[in-house]
Amino acid sequence: MKDRALRAIEECKLIATMSEEPGRITRRFLTTPMHEVHAHLSARMEALGMTVRVDAAGNLRGVWRPSEIDRKYLILGSHIDTVPGAGAFDGVLGVALALEWVELAQQIQFPFVIELIAFSDEEGVRYGVPFLGSRAVAGCFDRALLAMKDSNGISIEAAMRAFGLDPGRIGEAVADADAVGFVEIHIEQGPVLEAGSCSVAAVTGIVGQTRINLIFTGHANHAGTTPMHLRHDALAAAAEWIVAVEDLARSTDGLAATVGKIGVDPNVGNVIPGVAQVSLEVRHANDSTRAAAMNELLAKAASIAQRRGIALQHKDKLEHPAVPMDERLTTCLADAIVATGRPRKTIISGAGHDAMVMAAIMPAAMLFLRSPGGISHQAAEAVLEEDVEASLHVGREFLLRLAKEIG
Amino acid sequence: MKDRALRAIEECKLIATMSEEPGRITRRFLTTPMHEVHAHLSARMEALGMTVRVDAAGNLRGVWRPSEIDRKYLILGSHIDTVPGAGAFDGVLGVALALEWVELAQQIQFPFVIELIAFSDEEGVRYGVPFLGSRAVAGCFDRALLAMKDSNGISIEAAMRAFGLDPGRIGEAVADADAVGFVEIHIEQGPVLEAGSCSVAAVTGIVGQTRINLIFTGHANHAGTTPMHLRHDALAAAAEWIVAVEDLARSTDGLAATVGKIGVDPNVGNVIPGVAQVSLEVRHANDSTRAAAMNELLAKAASIAQRRGIALQHKDKLEHPAVPMDERLTTCLADAIVATGRPRKTIISGAGHDAMVMAAIMPAAMLFLRSPGGISHQAAEAVLEEDVEASLHVGREFLLRLAKEIG
Repeated sequence: MKDRALRAIEECKLIATMSEEPGRITRRFLTTPMHEVHAHLSARMEALGMTVRVDAAGNLRGVWRPSEIDRKYLILGSHIDTVPGAGAFDGVLGVALALEWVELAQQIQFPFVIELIAFSDEEGVRYGVPFLGSRAVAGCFDRALLAMKDSNGISIEAAMRAFGLDPGRIGEAVADADAVGFVEIHIEQGPVLEAGSCSVAAVTGIVGQTRINLIFTGHANHAGTTPMHLRHDALAAAAEWIVAVEDLARSTDGLAATVGKIGVDPNVGNVIPGVAQVSLEVRHANDSTRAAAMNELLAKAASIAQRRGIALQHKDKLEHPAVPMDERLTTCLADAIVATGRPRKTIISGAGHDAMVMAAIMPAAMLFLRSPGGISHQAAEAVLEEDVEASLHVGREFLLRLAKEIG
Repeated sequence: MKDRALRAIEECKLIATMSEEPGRITRRFLTTPMHEVHAHLSARMEALGMTVRVDAAGNLRGVWRPSEIDRKYLILGSHIDTVPGAGAFDGVLGVALALEWVELAQQIQFPFVIELIAFSDEEGVRYGVPFLGSRAVAGCFDRALLAMKDSNGISIEAAMRAFGLDPGRIGEAVADADAVGFVEIHIEQGPVLEAGSCSVAAVTGIVGQTRINLIFTGHANHAGTTPMHLRHDALAAAAEWIVAVEDLARSTDGLAATVGKIGVDPNVGNVIPGVAQVSLEVRHANDSTRAAAMNELLAKAASIAQRRGIALQHKDKLEHPAVPMDERLTTCLADAIVATGRPRKTIISGAGHDAMVMAAIMPAAMLFLRSPGGISHQAAEAVLEEDVEASLHVGREFLLRLAKEIG
């Protein structure tokens, strides 16, 4: 397993060199370096006896059949696109490890078909819409998306054609809904496993989230001539609310609430702020907890604004429900972790993943690997060799258990 | 007095038309419309029997002598430059009312020489340095300033020459330090007199101020994958401190503390803020109260930062001490207010004024007029006719009392 772990890590480092930008890792949906990645991974898949194709959404898909008669099949996969200036492991490690899992499956005579999918787009950087690859596989790729244009005015449809794909055949990318399930291996991209000294964890669900912008409108006035009791300071109101947001999140188990963005007008040192616009993002694995938190925070904002004689507006509300992972597959992963002598660690994913999209049509599960320093989406992103090795032991156990349970 | 009040208001409205920009009032130091203002005011001064000159700093100065032998003299004045998009009354009303006071002085046979100075620069818009006019009169015009350039690359020296002035004669602008004093009439530019239903007030002093920028540096991290207890959110730290700033100012009599400017990095909705930079401006009439408040707020910032595992830096500290107005002149103004049947209202000025600069070389005092809505530095700036009339009654009483007291 140690050699497999090293091979998977080397694979990530090699694929990291296939970039749009010299000296840093940037590989967006259907850009030239994705051809290189396809060529390289296709060769790896074919060496494992897999049948390889690229679907109309640019997903690279390899299928291994243990025999001609098997019908049940398991899908493994993750994405091979990256954010600009990415690390080497986000997405790609899941594909490199899935290749190892296929070989492990062959060794243990795993009885099902395995399809390995390297998704073409998860980050959504090129078109501002994430999950283009898994949307196609899950059958929820809205054809209206084809007309969207990137910053160079190239539509998704044109990008597909330039890559050698046929947008008319996107329906053929849809996976059979009767699959045993979809399993994604991914780095955590957060600090939780490191804080708990765990190598790996089974993901029980992906948080739902609400995003909203709030605008506090008070009165901009001279900071010298306006006494405190005659002020309507929009930034002071926003600050009081930001403190309340943090307080609520800290006291609510599993709640993440973030004010990441703030803009003040006129934003001058000697003028009392007249307008303060702030973003709020609230995430939780339980949709009703998230909704209750949003209600409480909006009520708090309203009461702060009212007490201060300040107007309050909301805008740009976005909402995504939480997506629980499949209980049977997740239990199987957690049992496999325990079987390898590790603590039964489960975790909620605070970020979206392809497994969230795949969960719409089949049982889905995820295995997280520890992210040193919680660092991701930057060059310093890393994995520990021991954790990669652990994930392989867990994979072998998982496949054995799954075969026994379902086969 | 009603006619005088109307004339002073009309004077301001007329001078408002002498602008660098069509449709709005903008009249910076030594720009072309200042020639127009000089021509107009010179005619008014000469009609009152005053001897008129323009000093090397561009201040228009008219002198009225009741007789050849009088030596004692009183200086009246305010500024005739404006901010961009100004109102009609900031500065100019003080000059228009001083013209009326000169005529009132003539009526009551005021025994001293009166010099009326229309300062060329108080706002500091053109060169980023305020009080260029009164600095020259107070003998603290640093000659190094002459090399400063405006946004078109024109130095103060070149601007003086282009206006027809001789920068070499700036020393001749200095007023005799043995003057009885300097009195400035000005709109409040704040809401205090309106809140107290007062027409006018004697200014007891001009606040001192400290300006500083604070930088909170935490860790930018993924808002979804980083649980609350593992965050080092720079904006949350800044918000907690902004609330503390407001709390202290509200609970400290006469203290104004303002966070007017904030900048967050990376300032993206789904990223925990890594850096938050905020401005702080603290004003108080008592320098030790201000210093104590600054110490308390910096200690509070340090403790917030330490508790949160966030680094704290300060930069760009600026400090100006408070300037008390002359007690005898101020008492004389307050007595004059009472003598006209109005409440004995005194006020601290939260903003700087030419009187602050003049106070360095002679007794200085100010009379404030109510600012409707506390509005200034914008087109909606206004005065009430009744308040302008009140200031004329007060002026006459003041001159009578001063003549009696000093003469």
